[in-house]
Amino acid sequence: MLTAENMRQRMEQMVREMQAEICAAIEELDGSHFRQDIWTRAEGGGGDTRVLQDGNLFEKAGVNVAVISGRMSSEAARSAQGRGRQDVGETVEFFATGLSIVVHPHNPMAPSAHANYRYFEMAGDPAVQSWWFGGGADLSPSYLFREDAGHFHRVHKAACDKHDLAFYPRFKQSCDDYFYIPHREERRGIGGIFFDNLKDRDKDQLFRFVCSCAEAFVPAYLPIVQARANMPFTQGEKQWQRIRRGRYVEFNLLYDRGTTFGLRTGGRTESILMSLPLVGCWEENGPPPSDGAEANILAVLRHPQEWI
Amino acid sequence: MLTAENMRQRMEQMVREMQAEICAAIEELDGSHFRQDIWTRAEGGGGDTRVLQDGNLFEKAGVNVAVISGRMSSEAARSAQGRGRQDVGETVEFFATGLSIVVHPHNPMAPSAHANYRYFEMAGDPAVQSWWFGGGADLSPSYLFREDAGHFHRVHKAACDKHDLAFYPRFKQSCDDYFYIPHREERRGIGGIFFDNLKDRDKDQLFRFVCSCAEAFVPAYLPIVQARANMPFTQGEKQWQRIRRGRYVEFNLLYDRGTTFGLRTGGRTESILMSLPLVGCWEENGPPPSDGAEANILAVLRHPQEWI
Repeated sequence: MLTAENMRQRMEQMVREMQAEICAAIEELDGSHFRQDIWTRAEGGGGDTRVLQDGNLFEKAGVNVAVISGRMSSEAARSAQGRGRQDVGETVEFFATGLSIVVHPHNPMAPSAHANYRYFEMAGDPAVQSWWFGGGADLSPSYLFREDAGHFHRVHKAACDKHDLAFYPRFKQSCDDYFYIPHREERRGIGGIFFDNLKDRDKDQLFRFVCSCAEAFVPAYLPIVQARANMPFTQGEKQWQRIRRGRYVEFNLLYDRGTTFGLRTGGRTESILMSLPLVGCWEENGPPPSDGAEANILAVLRHPQEWI
Repeated sequence: MLTAENMRQRMEQMVREMQAEICAAIEELDGSHFRQDIWTRAEGGGGDTRVLQDGNLFEKAGVNVAVISGRMSSEAARSAQGRGRQDVGETVEFFATGLSIVVHPHNPMAPSAHANYRYFEMAGDPAVQSWWFGGGADLSPSYLFREDAGHFHRVHKAACDKHDLAFYPRFKQSCDDYFYIPHREERRGIGGIFFDNLKDRDKDQLFRFVCSCAEAFVPAYLPIVQARANMPFTQGEKQWQRIRRGRYVEFNLLYDRGTTFGLRTGGRTESILMSLPLVGCWEENGPPPSDGAEANILAVLRHPQEWI
């Protein structure tokens, strides 16, 4: 059996507080309200899903908390841990709590953003560390504003630097690696930070690091939306945004570990797929434009940059 | 080395002829034209991709031929054959030719349709049969017209019955099984026929069966579009179609073997993702309607029917 311990409660409290704070900040900027859906899970635990749809600035914003526990197949456990274990057919106890944020604005000049912070415990071989943190935040613009990319990265670097100067470069690289869409030879967005299976420090220290990252979301992202959400745009630019959102859907359904793992292990579909944009488009128009603003964003999606 | 043999040429000729016939029939009904894209593949072979986008009746129609050969990793080969082999790290020679058809009409009363017929050869252990046929055709309506479902199934049953009375019930069941979306607890559409790894008959006999199926597509599907493509509809019905097309995207990117296998083995992205609709929508509106026309289609997507 898993031993109950303090970190579960501390992490749960943190993600619930951050959920309230982030929703309040988004509501204030947008002028409309989240719909709340509190759910429970027969196998143990539940969540609090909040969605704002068709707001004034936001096409769709979702801020979810999940606190779940139960048993998972050791196949799922292997996949969650990213390493091999031999006890196929058995099940293991687990506990997981996390915060997921996905925001898709209406205006094609305003980027989409995603963040996720989670704590995981798994029972099993006592010789193996059976807890870890995962998370990160990343920005997906349809049009490139270098100052926005710089701002988003700087705020997250500052959050990292408070804990370890090695964190930002390491997690920035992981982010560029993780959000790669091989069949498009491009990334979903212009990155940010990403970490998984993080357990190479003291647990309290990592918790404080994760708190700093979660607190960075609002100051890293909302000022960008504020600056871009009322810019003029053409129907062609709106259509380019829909095509980029089609790529967002491709990444999430084909490659995102959280999505594919969640759906395959019987996670809550509505909460997992909250990450998808309201509309995705797949137009067959031959090759993308070779110059202009669309080419500018494609260039940095193909070749990650240093933004700071 | 693979021995060259007649079936490769016969299958290629058949799929190229069917492509021309099907495109001509769609163009005649729509009044607009396919754009043709002939491509080659550095590793061997190539294809002929034809897309009609934003036509009068069709939002997107794609009719592709691919004739490819080369070497694939034995991991990919295992996945293609759906069985275990031990020679990890090696590569095997293969040859594949196929016809893929995906049609998404504008009018939400007119169903989407998909069909795919392919012949595969793989070198390797001579004790193992190293060729097979795969394919099928299925209908994905947003609104249910029982007579349309009946017609589509009857035409395909007639094609099957010419070859073996056991084929239709067997491949109808496989189709209902294959197009299941576990996380939605529903199927992509109302089925049709589906077969894979088909090699349990004489090769000539199976080829003639596959020809009959491919010939069935136009008479099975186009009369339905003709009957529905000018029906009146509301904006709410159009939105329901976009949500159903979002589910179509979910199936293809998460579960469709051709799509995931193709993308992971370096297939041609534009041709593989041609199957995606022009627009998919992910609205968060709580549970689907509990009565009315949307509930009628959901009921049969959840509980497959006998249509004949």
